[in-house]
Amino acid sequence: MPAETLEQLVSLCKRRGFIFQGSEIYGGLQGTFDFGPLGVELKNNLKRLWWKHNVYERDDMEGLDASILMNRYVWRYSGHEETFVDPLIDCKTCKGRFRADRLKDAACLKHSKLHPGECEGELTEPRAFNMMFKTQVGPIPDPESFAYLRPETAQGIFVNFKNVLDSTNRKLPFGIAQIGKAFRNEITPRNFVFRVREFEQMEIEYFCKPGEDEDIHSAFIEDHVDWWVNECGLSRDRITLYEVPSNELAHYSKRTVDIMYRFPIGEEELEGIANRTDYDLGSHSRDQEKLSITAKVSPNPHSTERLTYFDQPNNWHIVPYVIEPSAGVDRGILAILTEAYTEETLDNGETRVVLKLKPALAPIKVAVLPLKKNEPAIVETAKRIKKLLQSSGELRTVYDDTAGIGKLYRRQDEIGTPFCITVDFDTIGREEENGLKDTVTVRHRDSMQQERVAISDLPAYINDRI
Amino acid sequence: MPAETLEQLVSLCKRRGFIFQGSEIYGGLQGTFDFGPLGVELKNNLKRLWWKHNVYERDDMEGLDASILMNRYVWRYSGHEETFVDPLIDCKTCKGRFRADRLKDAACLKHSKLHPGECEGELTEPRAFNMMFKTQVGPIPDPESFAYLRPETAQGIFVNFKNVLDSTNRKLPFGIAQIGKAFRNEITPRNFVFRVREFEQMEIEYFCKPGEDEDIHSAFIEDHVDWWVNECGLSRDRITLYEVPSNELAHYSKRTVDIMYRFPIGEEELEGIANRTDYDLGSHSRDQEKLSITAKVSPNPHSTERLTYFDQPNNWHIVPYVIEPSAGVDRGILAILTEAYTEETLDNGETRVVLKLKPALAPIKVAVLPLKKNEPAIVETAKRIKKLLQSSGELRTVYDDTAGIGKLYRRQDEIGTPFCITVDFDTIGREEENGLKDTVTVRHRDSMQQERVAISDLPAYINDRI
Repeated sequence: MPAETLEQLVSLCKRRGFIFQGSEIYGGLQGTFDFGPLGVELKNNLKRLWWKHNVYERDDMEGLDASILMNRYVWRYSGHEETFVDPLIDCKTCKGRFRADRLKDAACLKHSKLHPGECEGELTEPRAFNMMFKTQVGPIPDPESFAYLRPETAQGIFVNFKNVLDSTNRKLPFGIAQIGKAFRNEITPRNFVFRVREFEQMEIEYFCKPGEDEDIHSAFIEDHVDWWVNECGLSRDRITLYEVPSNELAHYSKRTVDIMYRFPIGEEELEGIANRTDYDLGSHSRDQEKLSITAKVSPNPHSTERLTYFDQPNNWHIVPYVIEPSAGVDRGILAILTEAYTEETLDNGETRVVLKLKPALAPIKVAVLPLKKNEPAIVETAKRIKKLLQSSGELRTVYDDTAGIGKLYRRQDEIGTPFCITVDFDTIGREEENGLKDTVTVRHRDSMQQERVAISDLPAYINDRI
Repeated sequence: MPAETLEQLVSLCKRRGFIFQGSEIYGGLQGTFDFGPLGVELKNNLKRLWWKHNVYERDDMEGLDASILMNRYVWRYSGHEETFVDPLIDCKTCKGRFRADRLKDAACLKHSKLHPGECEGELTEPRAFNMMFKTQVGPIPDPESFAYLRPETAQGIFVNFKNVLDSTNRKLPFGIAQIGKAFRNEITPRNFVFRVREFEQMEIEYFCKPGEDEDIHSAFIEDHVDWWVNECGLSRDRITLYEVPSNELAHYSKRTVDIMYRFPIGEEELEGIANRTDYDLGSHSRDQEKLSITAKVSPNPHSTERLTYFDQPNNWHIVPYVIEPSAGVDRGILAILTEAYTEETLDNGETRVVLKLKPALAPIKVAVLPLKKNEPAIVETAKRIKKLLQSSGELRTVYDDTAGIGKLYRRQDEIGTPFCITVDFDTIGREEENGLKDTVTVRHRDSMQQERVAISDLPAYINDRI
C-alpha cells in the first residue's frame, strides 16, 4: 500500500534526512529543497540508473552537460522569451499576485476568496508573466548583458547539436542525453518537491529523419514506461498515458504523450514525451530560407550555424526531427518514495514503516549491526565487515550500534536498506562449536527472513542482489 | 610529458567532444563552458571517485545536495554580501570596467595600456563590485524578494548542520560532503575552464571540537594530496603546498593551505583547505551571546536555530570548529587533462597523442573494433562483445568501424580509452585451426602491447583493470 498523503512522505523525508526545506533556518526560500544524506544517495542512484539505461546500454546515444547560464538569444529563438509565461492577476488594493488559471472565474471572483478576510480589492485583467529567472552577467549593467537561468535543459542540447555531430561522427538516428538543473519562477510553488523553482531534469533529444519520427516516438513511450516500472519499481497500474489533445499542443508539436503517475496529490505528469518535429534545430539555424523546415520558425539573424545533418547517400542537408523524452528527477523521487512507502501491521500487532525501494535505488545498501555493543570481538568484527563491503564497489554501508537490534532493524526498514547484517556470539565462535563461526545473519527488508551467510561470501552475496 | 600549452588542450577538447564554449552558436556567453559526450563522462567519473573516497570509504561522512538558490540572509551572515567583492575601476570616457588588482598601479596607468589605441580616458578610484549573481524570485518585484545564485556550495552545508545532525545522530567529529554548481560574476573570466562564471565544487565541511582542529586539518591536506596523485594520476612533483601567510588570511581563518598544481598557465590553486574555526556555525546561529564563539561574528537576528552540538559527557553546547577542503571540479579536470596529455614519437617516426588517464577516469573504457567491416561474422561478433561488456557494470563501451585499425587505435589513444579489443579472422575461426577461435586481441593504450584473451574472460579481465 503506497503512501496515501504527502504528509507521510514529508515527515519521513525530514526526520530521516531525505529532503529538507531549502534555507530552513532563515524561514526557507519558497520552492527550494535541499537533499539530505539519504536524499542525495537516492537522487544519485536514480540519475545513474537513468544514464545507464539511456546512454550506456544503447548504441545510439551520447551524453552532454551544458551550462545553466546561456546566451539570451538561446531563449529568444527557442520561443521562451515570448511564450514561457503564466497569466498573472494583480489585486489593485493589496498588490497581491495570483495565477489567473488557478481561479475559476477571475473576473467575478472576489479577492477575499484567495486570502479570506484580508482584502477585497479589485483585480486586474490577466497579463503575461515570464517564468524565467534573469540575472546580470559581467560588471556593466547595460540592458544587453543579462542571461536567463535555463528553464529546461533541452536547449543546451539543441545549440550543441553541431558540436556533438562534428566530434563524434554520429549517423542519424541518434540521441543526446542530459541530466541537470533547471529553474522556473513559479508563481505558486506547491506540493513538496512536485512543483518547485529549482529542479532537475533528465532529458533526451533524439534526432531522426522525418518519417522515422512516429515509430521512434512510440518506442520511447513504451521503453520509458517499462523503465519506470522495472527499474524504479513503480506499479504499472498507477501509471497512465495521457495523449495531449491536438488543440492543447504547441504549434510545432506533432504529438505529445505524458506518462502520468498517481501521486498522493492525484494523477500528475512524471515524464513528457514529445515529437517536436524540426522546430528546434530549425529555429536555432541561420540561413533558414535555404533549408527545408516544416515547422513555423522565427527568422534568426543571430545564429552562426546551420543545425543540419548531411545525408550523404542522398546528397542533401536534413533538418532532423526530434523526439524528446523529458522526465523530472524530483518528481521521479517523489513517485518512487510514494510507491515504496509501506505501513505494515506485524504479527505482534505493531506497525512497521518500510520503504520497499529497489535495491539499486536504496541510499544505503547494507547496515552492519553488532548484537552487543560492549562486546569488543563483536564490535571489531562488525566494523571489519563494514570495511570489507564498502571497499567492494560502491556499496554504501553503515555501522550502527546505538540501539537494540529490533529498533535498529526498524530504522533501516524505514529508509529502505535492503540488507541488515547482524554479528552475534556465533559469529565470533564464543558459543559451543556449532559451525556458525565466521558467519553472520543477513536479514531481508521486505520479507524479514533471515539467513546465515559466511563472511567471506558477503561481497558476492550482496552484489548479486543489487 | 604533460601538456605545455592551454591551446593543446582547448583544441583536443573541442575536436573530440570534451568541452565546448557555452552558447557557441550565438557567439558564446563569456565564462561558461559545455561538457560534451566525453567531457560529461570524465566529469562524472571524477565526481564519483571523489565521493567514493570521501564519503563511502570513510566512516565519518554524510552527503548533501543543497539548492543553488538560497535565502539572501544566508549570504548576509556568511559575510558574502559585504566582502565577496572585487575592486573595480571605471574609465570615465569609454565606460569600460577593469579589475583594479590586475593593474600594477591603477592611479597612474593610462587606460590605453588596457585596450591600446582605443581610449585614454581618466580612470576612477577602485570601488567594490560584488561578484554574486542576483535574481528576482517570485512574481512581485519588491526589493526584498531576490536571491543570489550561490557563489560556493559551503553555505548549503552550514545552514543544514542541524538538519543533518538531527536526522543522523552523528557524534563529533564528522563531516558533510557536497558536490554542486556555484556561480561567480567574474569581471574577467579567462584561461579556459580555469576561471569561469559557472563552475562546480567538491566541498567538505568537517566539524570537530576546538583543539582537534589542527590535527584534522593536517590529515586532510595529506589525504587529499595523496588522492590527487594516486587516484587522479597527477604527478607529485607538479603539486606544491602553499601556506597562506597570516596577513592574507580572512579574520576568522586560523590556517589555510592551498594545493597548487603546475597548470600550463603556471602554478595555480587546485584545492584550498582551510581551518575556518567556529565562524560559520557561529555566524548562522541565533542567541550568539549565549554561545561561546571564538570568531568575530555579526549579530544575527534572523536565524531560527543554534547551530551547536550537545556534548553529553560534559553537558554543554559546543559550536564546532570547521575544516574545509574545497576543490574545483573544472580545475580538477583541467589538471587531469594537463597531466594525461602526451605527445609521443613512435619507432616509425610518427607522433601519437595519447591521454594517459587513469582507467577509472577514462570516458570510454573499451572500444571494440572489427578488423574488417564488411565481414558480417566479424561485425556481428564485435557488436556482441560490446553488448556483453556494457551490460557488465557501468563500462562505457563503444563500437567503431569507420576507419582502418591503425587510425581507430589513434582515435582511442587520443581520448584515453585504456583498452581496444580487436575482432579478427582468428576470432571467428575462419583461418586454420590455431586455437584462437573465440579469442580477441586486447591492446593496451600506454604500452601499445597486445595480448590474446578469450571472449568469455573479457568482463572479468576489464573490470579487474579499472
